[in-house]
Amino acid sequence: MHYHYPEPIAKLIEGFSKLPGIGPKTAQRLSFHVLNMEEKDVLFIAKALVEAKKDLHYCSQCQNITDVDPCYICNDKTRDPSIICVVQEPKDVIAMEKTREYNGLYHVLNGVISPMEGIGPEQLKIKELLVRLKDEQVKEMILATNPNIEGEATAMYLSKLVKPFGIKVTRIAHGLPVGGDLEYADEVTLTKALEGRREI
Amino acid sequence: MHYHYPEPIAKLIEGFSKLPGIGPKTAQRLSFHVLNMEEKDVLFIAKALVEAKKDLHYCSQCQNITDVDPCYICNDKTRDPSIICVVQEPKDVIAMEKTREYNGLYHVLNGVISPMEGIGPEQLKIKELLVRLKDEQVKEMILATNPNIEGEATAMYLSKLVKPFGIKVTRIAHGLPVGGDLEYADEVTLTKALEGRREI
Repeated sequence: MHYHYPEPIAKLIEGFSKLPGIGPKTAQRLSFHVLNMEEKDVLFIAKALVEAKKDLHYCSQCQNITDVDPCYICNDKTRDPSIICVVQEPKDVIAMEKTREYNGLYHVLNGVISPMEGIGPEQLKIKELLVRLKDEQVKEMILATNPNIEGEATAMYLSKLVKPFGIKVTRIAHGLPVGGDLEYADEVTLTKALEGRREI
Repeated sequence: MHYHYPEPIAKLIEGFSKLPGIGPKTAQRLSFHVLNMEEKDVLFIAKALVEAKKDLHYCSQCQNITDVDPCYICNDKTRDPSIICVVQEPKDVIAMEKTREYNGLYHVLNGVISPMEGIGPEQLKIKELLVRLKDEQVKEMILATNPNIEGEATAMYLSKLVKPFGIKVTRIAHGLPVGGDLEYADEVTLTKALEGRREI
């Protein structure tokens, strides 16, 4: 008989392999680590998995991940409902909130147009965005998708789509990162920084 | 109010962060992936975690990870109990078994002597090895720890410790890997390959 891992460990390796970026070797390493972990930590992870899957869903308004509906931000009456900031992912909302500078609402596309990965506009939460733009008193839409090819393409697409609504459409600025060094900036960023120069 | 992730996702990120080599960014990426996974796959992982922790333990004889005691190998009457191959980790048993050349028993140290990481002999399953060497009809102990500094040190330590038992102690051979190229072999390996040369 050819020897294999005991079934419980084989199943755990199979389980970890279902996660993105985790190959068989890493799955094996994680599995053996689990055997040496404290039981309460292992149960914590198992419970968190089940509950995250059970309790989380998309906010019916902004499409961010939430455990209440509408989410805390959409439900916050102190925020300005006339501005919607469009971002790619829930983690981008966290990044924006950390600035403490923005007090409008969000719309999370949950992805970006990427022909390379076969993702078109219909797979993003764009229908839901258009519904909000029609129903609400929105005056400005800030496009805060990532400053790369897919993010730019998505911003251009949305900009054209939303123009007929008569809403002001803006794009976050490109330029040199604060604390950066001119010498090490790539040409495209430097060109954008020049184009976006402002009088001081 | 400063916005944070909803609690279920924050807990899942915290859970993944408890695994080795998984930092906050990876934990975040894995967590969002879980939200898009099929429910049955998520439950599979959660169940595998709980059951691996519940059902697996060390074999009372060879100290390998097992769900039955003694493990399949220790319990296999067709295997030769006069040879014990000492390895560092359960995965090394799998590697040895794949050769289909070895028919003795194993002893899994579950670690290696490493002063750098503060791991001394007392943290390895060495006591359990000595008990087996005293009680059983063992004629040979093969030291199959890894061919690196820690593995060599552990092999030397065990070799000295076991000498008084009057048991033949052997070490797996060092040399050029099959399919390797002399040109790319490091000096230490090449020296070991020369030292270990045999008449053909």
